[in-house]
Amino acid sequence: MTLLVRLTPPYPVLIAPGLLGGLAGHIAQRRLALIADSHTDTLFGDTVQAGLERPDKAVVRLVVPAGEASKSFDQLAALLEAMVEAGLDRQSAVVALGGGVVSDLAGFAAACFMRGIAFYACPTSLLAMVDASVGGKTGLNLPQGKNLVGAFWQPRAVFADVEALRTLPEREFRQGAVEVFKHGLLSDPWLLEHFFDPRFAPHGPSDFLATMISRAIKVKADIVAADPLEQGPRAYLNLGHTLGHALEAHSRHRLAHGDAVAYGLIFAALLAKQRGWSDETARLRQLIAWLKPAPLEVASFDELLPYLYRDKKNLAGKLRFVLLPRPTQPTLVEDITEAELRAAWRALQEVL
Amino acid sequence: MTLLVRLTPPYPVLIAPGLLGGLAGHIAQRRLALIADSHTDTLFGDTVQAGLERPDKAVVRLVVPAGEASKSFDQLAALLEAMVEAGLDRQSAVVALGGGVVSDLAGFAAACFMRGIAFYACPTSLLAMVDASVGGKTGLNLPQGKNLVGAFWQPRAVFADVEALRTLPEREFRQGAVEVFKHGLLSDPWLLEHFFDPRFAPHGPSDFLATMISRAIKVKADIVAADPLEQGPRAYLNLGHTLGHALEAHSRHRLAHGDAVAYGLIFAALLAKQRGWSDETARLRQLIAWLKPAPLEVASFDELLPYLYRDKKNLAGKLRFVLLPRPTQPTLVEDITEAELRAAWRALQEVL
Repeated sequence: MTLLVRLTPPYPVLIAPGLLGGLAGHIAQRRLALIADSHTDTLFGDTVQAGLERPDKAVVRLVVPAGEASKSFDQLAALLEAMVEAGLDRQSAVVALGGGVVSDLAGFAAACFMRGIAFYACPTSLLAMVDASVGGKTGLNLPQGKNLVGAFWQPRAVFADVEALRTLPEREFRQGAVEVFKHGLLSDPWLLEHFFDPRFAPHGPSDFLATMISRAIKVKADIVAADPLEQGPRAYLNLGHTLGHALEAHSRHRLAHGDAVAYGLIFAALLAKQRGWSDETARLRQLIAWLKPAPLEVASFDELLPYLYRDKKNLAGKLRFVLLPRPTQPTLVEDITEAELRAAWRALQEVL
Repeated sequence: MTLLVRLTPPYPVLIAPGLLGGLAGHIAQRRLALIADSHTDTLFGDTVQAGLERPDKAVVRLVVPAGEASKSFDQLAALLEAMVEAGLDRQSAVVALGGGVVSDLAGFAAACFMRGIAFYACPTSLLAMVDASVGGKTGLNLPQGKNLVGAFWQPRAVFADVEALRTLPEREFRQGAVEVFKHGLLSDPWLLEHFFDPRFAPHGPSDFLATMISRAIKVKADIVAADPLEQGPRAYLNLGHTLGHALEAHSRHRLAHGDAVAYGLIFAALLAKQRGWSDETARLRQLIAWLKPAPLEVASFDELLPYLYRDKKNLAGKLRFVLLPRPTQPTLVEDITEAELRAAWRALQEVL
């Protein structure tokens, strides 16, 4: 199936099994840098290259080490220099093959090579399909924090091959699924109703996976289209991420992103419940039971506070939480008190 | 005087004496990184900082070494890390204080810090005022070539303080003046008529300098507004630069930019003349006499050819020259033969 992200210009997200082997027909540029990490290059590199190369199309394969550490200026500079050496010019394109790390880094390389060239994304993890591939966020990390450098650079097209998920460990699939759950909470109850269906798994049937994924992408695509530069409603996508990011940073990124966001989602639900708003805590306990996140290693809430105040989305030192006063009606709440936070933190310990 | 660059959104270029000491009223952001090089920081840093700081406005001064070598990933990363440490966030701004190197580097830092924050330019050289400060080109160099990395990132405002020119060596002033001459050739004969006026000098009267500069900026601003991403008519600004860039690269950048472009302008005029088009060679000989460029050190035209073919503006291996079939009527010519180039090169040796 194909979904249109209504930005200027609009671009398609294709979701189907077997896409990765036949990209040449979808990509007009004739000089391409295919950027993958050591893992995705091994798994899919040959297939993608074979499906891209034509007598009039040259592909240079560039590989970065798998893992978050590749989102660095060193890797970026190495990629850009290799692109010059390979003869890429302003009419060329970058094709990213991998998860969020590859798409963030390769997307930023496309954004700044000769001040910007065409970019295509082939997300291979569930998280990258439903999150990183739509929205145009690209970038890298600094020693001081993640994603502090980057650009908004929209892809020309996104190719989500559900067969790529077959290679994903169950645990990593479930990590990515947390974002699908979040998108369901934000605006698609159908996703929540089908979330715990056993077919929603790495080896589930392609058509079911494609439906789940395309519905999850549509939630994000609609929000991004309404706010491409993250100045307003796009903040809703941050549901569960305020505490989530603090937990990740506090753990020095040993806590996985999905685990952290799942804790963040239930924390946000507890905050809403305390205010007498909608009570989503039951389904979120179900999510936690399904996900089996690593246990929280936070001795006291005071340890977390500095990380909460450091969030990139805060303005002028005020904490901002996305909450759901009513189902599928997110709101940005800026008057959360520290007392509310402490009460929700205590409640979180009880429900876990 | 104030000139409006008609992009989306439009932004003003202020041209006046004494601007640098009173910027606070023009810049709304409250956390600012003032980025200069070792030279401009010494000359103007204290003045600008004093004119910016307010009880509610904090300024962090960041200094890079003077010179082209600062347009590197190392310097960029150092700036971005310092900006994080200084507590800058998405609502903060970068103020560039210096010539083209500082504005390219600081502009790119603004473009990619937290995916883009506000940028203000205070050009302090004539070249930066009439060229680098308008157009939104930012970036840095790779070992393989100049400006291969960057972003289009428009400033919120440009402050051209003509008093800053007082500190400019005559030779550097004249280097920058070559671009003023080019803008005159492209579309403002008034600039050519007044170009050799002795008042057009570092110590010339402020009102005369401001008039020359604002007319020169207007030429570029109008072209850029018609083509912000350099897909069409903006190529006209490349008049004289095809050969100019080749000469610079061939000399390993020992030949100054103004000198190289002056040679390129007369070369383009000779190409046009050979085709029976307008003959601007007389005024260009006058420009060369006034500029006194470093002599050309090219043993034979064959040495230059590979550098010509490497130009970023070429498409699919074809050489593209901007020429003037008639005064102020630039055209992009794509069918120049090697024989024409060789003839013009011989003619150039004769007129020098």
